[in-house]
Amino acid sequence: MLYSEFSQEQLLIEKEQLQKRYDEFKAQNLSLDMSRGKPSPLQLDLSMDVLGEVDLCENFRASNGFDCRNYGVLDGIPECKKLFAELLEVDEKNIIIGGNSSLTLMFDYISQCMTHGAGKEAWLKQGDIKFICPVPGYDRHFGILEHFGIEMINVDMLSDGPDMDKVNELIKDRSVKGMILVPKYSNPEGITLSDECVRKIAAMKPAAEDFRVIWDNAYCIHDINDTHDELLNVFEAAKEYSSEDMFIEVTSTSKISFPGAGVSALAASDKNIEMIKKRMTVQTIGNDKLNQLRHVMYFKNLDGIKNHMKKHAESLKPKFDAVIRCFTEEFSGTGIASWKNPNGGYFISLNVLEGCAKRTGELCKEAGVVLTTPGATYPYGKDPKDTNIRIAPSFPCVEELETAAELLCVSARLAACEKLLKR
Amino acid sequence: MLYSEFSQEQLLIEKEQLQKRYDEFKAQNLSLDMSRGKPSPLQLDLSMDVLGEVDLCENFRASNGFDCRNYGVLDGIPECKKLFAELLEVDEKNIIIGGNSSLTLMFDYISQCMTHGAGKEAWLKQGDIKFICPVPGYDRHFGILEHFGIEMINVDMLSDGPDMDKVNELIKDRSVKGMILVPKYSNPEGITLSDECVRKIAAMKPAAEDFRVIWDNAYCIHDINDTHDELLNVFEAAKEYSSEDMFIEVTSTSKISFPGAGVSALAASDKNIEMIKKRMTVQTIGNDKLNQLRHVMYFKNLDGIKNHMKKHAESLKPKFDAVIRCFTEEFSGTGIASWKNPNGGYFISLNVLEGCAKRTGELCKEAGVVLTTPGATYPYGKDPKDTNIRIAPSFPCVEELETAAELLCVSARLAACEKLLKR
Repeated sequence: MLYSEFSQEQLLIEKEQLQKRYDEFKAQNLSLDMSRGKPSPLQLDLSMDVLGEVDLCENFRASNGFDCRNYGVLDGIPECKKLFAELLEVDEKNIIIGGNSSLTLMFDYISQCMTHGAGKEAWLKQGDIKFICPVPGYDRHFGILEHFGIEMINVDMLSDGPDMDKVNELIKDRSVKGMILVPKYSNPEGITLSDECVRKIAAMKPAAEDFRVIWDNAYCIHDINDTHDELLNVFEAAKEYSSEDMFIEVTSTSKISFPGAGVSALAASDKNIEMIKKRMTVQTIGNDKLNQLRHVMYFKNLDGIKNHMKKHAESLKPKFDAVIRCFTEEFSGTGIASWKNPNGGYFISLNVLEGCAKRTGELCKEAGVVLTTPGATYPYGKDPKDTNIRIAPSFPCVEELETAAELLCVSARLAACEKLLKR
Repeated sequence: MLYSEFSQEQLLIEKEQLQKRYDEFKAQNLSLDMSRGKPSPLQLDLSMDVLGEVDLCENFRASNGFDCRNYGVLDGIPECKKLFAELLEVDEKNIIIGGNSSLTLMFDYISQCMTHGAGKEAWLKQGDIKFICPVPGYDRHFGILEHFGIEMINVDMLSDGPDMDKVNELIKDRSVKGMILVPKYSNPEGITLSDECVRKIAAMKPAAEDFRVIWDNAYCIHDINDTHDELLNVFEAAKEYSSEDMFIEVTSTSKISFPGAGVSALAASDKNIEMIKKRMTVQTIGNDKLNQLRHVMYFKNLDGIKNHMKKHAESLKPKFDAVIRCFTEEFSGTGIASWKNPNGGYFISLNVLEGCAKRTGELCKEAGVVLTTPGATYPYGKDPKDTNIRIAPSFPCVEELETAAELLCVSARLAACEKLLKR
């Protein structure tokens, strides 16, 4: 029976039962963290041969003979560029290898746009500027934009990507300078943009000639289920509209090898690559080539990465399944929650009864389970409907996860009862 | 006999003899590079145990138990902060561990000052701003300032540091926002600031309350001769004047372990550390902790680094000696050149006859020896007297270096003859 159809009396009984279950959880003194998309120790173990098997003492030269121990090589060693070119399906000349974090590639690019512009004029000199943020989205994206004082405009993520009618309206405004999103297995919903949506994005005609789409392809190869989502290559789509300059794509091996000790990469048009390299010449003596070599020597090629990712999937799938199973069991028939079962990525997005996400988070926290702060999936930490909760199931083990998910469900139902009783 | 006292006829004879020697060099088809401060392959070999001996598969945890393979830890693992705190003689809380390059730490800091300010207001919003550049100096410093459109003002490096009378005049201007320099074994002259000079810098009272000194302590432990220069700890000196907020110190292991695969660090006051961390929270998921661990496991402590640096010194000393010996032999009595014999660092700075540095560089290049482009040691690449040439003796072997240094001397003398003949 739907919660919305419960009488006051029925709600009170439901609440009482849930409160009892909740108190039992609380008595367990749990301490679990589902707040960040962190690989588990077992996943990290999968990559130990990147450190243990690769012998850099014997092989410290790049394929072109370059001594990777010394200064030089701004944009990455050839074989590493080749590997990421394969992964992102672009030319090697359109790849720049970054440091250990694609977040830094995005921050640095937007910082460059602020001080030097993406076209002729620095964004900082163009008055107030705005970015389109498909929501729910990734809190660290919003963090970068907020840091630079860029106003964020919410646009809903529909089932196949951002609401492009809305986007096409917004880009008529010259002060709207860009859009930032995760196009495959989106953070947090796990949505992959349809081919049609990618084409619509490639076809955009923004009033701002220096409009940029930050295409954070963090989960480009991070499948979990046997059914894989396929993302259309945005640079291929852009060819038809000559809009290649509009896209800055980034990715990394943070969730392939090691978070924080992996390799990141950026893909962009010739013109953008040239502008970015111009800044890098001043900013860096080049990124860590030994770590690039380490990664290429271990993974070898795209097939090597694909095989490796199967092992990650094996580790992640039972965890995603456990959460989805719990949601299905606990929320069925209540009408107070919705979620998607993503084919990949790192998150499950749960929408609870409107106005109940914050309260659910509080209840979980009080009972020892930390979720991503409700609201964090929206710009400025403000979920207008207070409904979205991001679950990161990768780090805890399945058993812990089952407990945490159940507590989450009980908390969400409890919060819903409280809310409905106040009507 | 001094060149300046030569008659036209004597100059012609001298020139002819030099031309003959120069042509012989040219016939050798040399290909040598003394342009950048790159460690030699033999120096890199000294650090191979950082890669080969350290077993991260067995030890991937920081001293506090943190799994260095995963996300987390913004400002560095405790033992790495401790090591750099020892090296720079500051508290661990005043250290931030960076990525593989202190250049990036400086770029990012100045970028942050531009967009967010060092005090209340962004530098970019304060109209035209300026920096004091002790000259000759480091071309990459000038590159950063030029990139951000910061006007550079030359101030002479005297024998014990920048001309502080001049500096103290300049800082009366509120638009003068900072000074950037290498305080120990300066690039290119190898000058170490005297205690008195450091105290004068600490005592500065700039009109701009957001004035910053970028204290690039790149060669803090890079002694070559048995006589070591000692640099007064600038934060100690600053205590007396409560000017700690004025200093941003950086260093790295680029020339201790591997250039491009080392670890960098920044030291600053509590207030500055807080501001920088605030930006880093948005910019990065934290720097490479496995590489931090690798370095600490190998070097262990300051003594470990000191012992290691003795091996570098053994490798570098014969090279520096060869260049100095050649200069002494070739220039003695000519009165057309001056140089210093530094106790450490990576460079020898040669001042040739005024107006002859560019021509000397051309002559060397034509004969196959690449020097740092004359002019590069000055802002905007403009050496007002066209006199300074930076020599980087680390990379070639001693034999090559002897050849290159002799060619350089012959070229400088030839250029001087040409110049003097035009009087």
